[in-house]
Amino acid sequence: MGAFETSSPAVAPKLLPRLSEQYLSLRSNGQRLIETLESACAWGNTPDGGMNRLACNDDDGKVRQWFIDETKKCGCEIKIDAMGNMFAIRPGQNNNLPPIGIGSHLDTQPTGGKYDGILGVTSGIEVLQTLHANNITTYAPLAIINWTNEEGARFPPAMLASGVWGGAFTTEYGHGRTDQNGVTLKQELERIGFLGKTPCSFEANPLSAHFELHIEQGPMLDAAEFPVAVVRGVQSIRWYSIDIVGREAHTGTTPMDRRSDALLGAAKMIVEANRFVTEGDLAARGARATIAVIESGPGSINTIAGKVRLNLDIRAPTDLDVALVEELCRARFHEICEEQGLTMDIDHFWTSPALHFDPTMVQCVRESANKAGCQMELVSGAGHDSVYTSLKVPTAMMFVRCRDGVSHNPAEYSRPEDCAAGAEVLLGAYLRYDNYLRTLNEPAKA
Amino acid sequence: MGAFETSSPAVAPKLLPRLSEQYLSLRSNGQRLIETLESACAWGNTPDGGMNRLACNDDDGKVRQWFIDETKKCGCEIKIDAMGNMFAIRPGQNNNLPPIGIGSHLDTQPTGGKYDGILGVTSGIEVLQTLHANNITTYAPLAIINWTNEEGARFPPAMLASGVWGGAFTTEYGHGRTDQNGVTLKQELERIGFLGKTPCSFEANPLSAHFELHIEQGPMLDAAEFPVAVVRGVQSIRWYSIDIVGREAHTGTTPMDRRSDALLGAAKMIVEANRFVTEGDLAARGARATIAVIESGPGSINTIAGKVRLNLDIRAPTDLDVALVEELCRARFHEICEEQGLTMDIDHFWTSPALHFDPTMVQCVRESANKAGCQMELVSGAGHDSVYTSLKVPTAMMFVRCRDGVSHNPAEYSRPEDCAAGAEVLLGAYLRYDNYLRTLNEPAKA
Repeated sequence: MGAFETSSPAVAPKLLPRLSEQYLSLRSNGQRLIETLESACAWGNTPDGGMNRLACNDDDGKVRQWFIDETKKCGCEIKIDAMGNMFAIRPGQNNNLPPIGIGSHLDTQPTGGKYDGILGVTSGIEVLQTLHANNITTYAPLAIINWTNEEGARFPPAMLASGVWGGAFTTEYGHGRTDQNGVTLKQELERIGFLGKTPCSFEANPLSAHFELHIEQGPMLDAAEFPVAVVRGVQSIRWYSIDIVGREAHTGTTPMDRRSDALLGAAKMIVEANRFVTEGDLAARGARATIAVIESGPGSINTIAGKVRLNLDIRAPTDLDVALVEELCRARFHEICEEQGLTMDIDHFWTSPALHFDPTMVQCVRESANKAGCQMELVSGAGHDSVYTSLKVPTAMMFVRCRDGVSHNPAEYSRPEDCAAGAEVLLGAYLRYDNYLRTLNEPAKA
Repeated sequence: MGAFETSSPAVAPKLLPRLSEQYLSLRSNGQRLIETLESACAWGNTPDGGMNRLACNDDDGKVRQWFIDETKKCGCEIKIDAMGNMFAIRPGQNNNLPPIGIGSHLDTQPTGGKYDGILGVTSGIEVLQTLHANNITTYAPLAIINWTNEEGARFPPAMLASGVWGGAFTTEYGHGRTDQNGVTLKQELERIGFLGKTPCSFEANPLSAHFELHIEQGPMLDAAEFPVAVVRGVQSIRWYSIDIVGREAHTGTTPMDRRSDALLGAAKMIVEANRFVTEGDLAARGARATIAVIESGPGSINTIAGKVRLNLDIRAPTDLDVALVEELCRARFHEICEEQGLTMDIDHFWTSPALHFDPTMVQCVRESANKAGCQMELVSGAGHDSVYTSLKVPTAMMFVRCRDGVSHNPAEYSRPEDCAAGAEVLLGAYLRYDNYLRTLNEPAKA
């Protein structure tokens, strides 16, 4: 499953205060949203209709300038922090409150699409433009956010900069991440002019809450024929780097039974990791294991591979199942090394535990989604910046249907009417939480 | 098996004319041979005791100059052909005859050793120095040969330049081979100053015969505790390049049963190709299948691999078994593509058929080896330049024991006494064939 349909809420939802007529009458503009999305894809798009905008490259620098121009038109002031995270802040009636954030990311995979992350930021801009066009000043300030390097495709790990803001990583760690050419994230932020002065942390630059709209990147909505889903949480994720060492030898003269073939061992690990999550209970419970990166040396057709590096990605709705898949892989991989005469080193370098979003925030999304006729509730199969904002502030997400659940691919596509429905649900959820904050802080007026 | 022990000769050996006392009394110098070997490894050696001297790089240029200096000391004149093959020619009594060649190669694998090829060339130089030190003028001229790019590690395919000389490839094809950076062999030959004027062909630059001494690169001699073996022929070899195309998708959200994972498919192919030659009759008959090169894209930990390229190397004592392994692989690989939703393109880009060396030449090696107490006869598991010289002239080889059969590895090692024994067998075999040519051309004096 791309995401996991869930049973009824874990906690009974709080009853939300009734939304004012003024708020209820607001409508976003789907046509404008699509135009904004297209202009956000003017840099880094590829001939096959996809996107290749790795974090902090020149195209990322250009779309960041575009983000500043667009949000300033709606009366926003721009804050950029030490990780290059961008906050376009529109004042509210009570500016003693930190802003309610609506955020996602503008970076993409090397073979990515136009919706992953970009639809979230542009939907936030659509909310901003709707408020601006209708001269609405919300109770709390609003911050539209572009989080840096969400994909982690150029600077692993993923969700790096929201992770620093949420306290999962230090700024030093974030700055020190390097790409394949050994260039650091800090160097590239400086080069494109987006190494900001605001410290990157909740404490130095707080929010009241964080909403994120994202494409599902899975097939559930497509199958159920809903445009939008409430996201209740995010599955558990762990990443590993595995180094396998065998022995280089001549392919023509080395007996099959006297080889230490690191690539053969790696191949067996790839097959076994796949088997663990495609058979039995783990498959039924939606566990996933993927090896998508392999490097093999010395890379000569008649010399048996002596060194192989793999990256392993394990996910499941629960931390327990991820740990179980890891355990199965470790045990079997060690057996394979025994059988093949190999040595192995497994580096577990990143963890993102299973997550349940804030019940009140989820209820805001739920009411707004239900009003739009969308009943589906899911658990995300992918990590998102909201995983890290949830460490500090009430957070919730909504998913927009994408065709065949295809993502991280140039063929990634969401219909305009689904994007529009998503923006509408986002607007309603945001307004409900803004209204909730008003009643919290000014019970008298409630 | 690294090589294949064979039954008695296919043809009854011709009776060779008796060797003159003068020839019988000649001895090579094992100590001098090892010194020559060490000086031939002065360029491109690695800290781990191995060699990294890819064809036509700067180190190859330097050792080529050394080859010229060493052979000129023994009264040789140097010929360099259009593929950079080097012929150090020492005149004989009958210079109407083409020289008897003793050749191998000075290039190595990127993670190679000091003996593969280098021992063959330096043993030839040892024969040359023995004749020179003893003021012997053999009947036919002698040519010590350094064949260009035997490994094919930088410019695939292997044995490229002896292949051009033997008519298996055109000079244009050889010149056009490119390395990973797109640089052509011709450009590199020109750069290091070894693009010769002599046309590269048997017709333009003939030999009377070709002897080659090489390390076994397999475990048979080590197991049987012989220093040297007669080589009766070379096994059959085919090389393939396989392109696998799947679909990039998000590792976290794409259901396991909705993936087109090119790397998973490639892994299954690697495992299956190995299985075919490690089970049943094919294993018993010494067939081999190896995949040692893999490239996977896009190379992002959370994007399922959409494109993979593999190189496949199939070998067996008979062409029939190589064809059988290919057939098994093609059928199973197509099934895997069906199962995994992949497409595949298999390019069979190189063939080296099974080969039986010239009976008279083999008899020369046999008599010389038997005189040294070596009875073992093998079929080579690896291709060698002698495969291509045998297309034009009587050819034979002898193997020297290497520790544990390890080759294409810095740990590659042959004991000095085994190297010396090999050079001694080479000298005797060469003198026997020279004597055979004398009796052929001057029966009166026989």
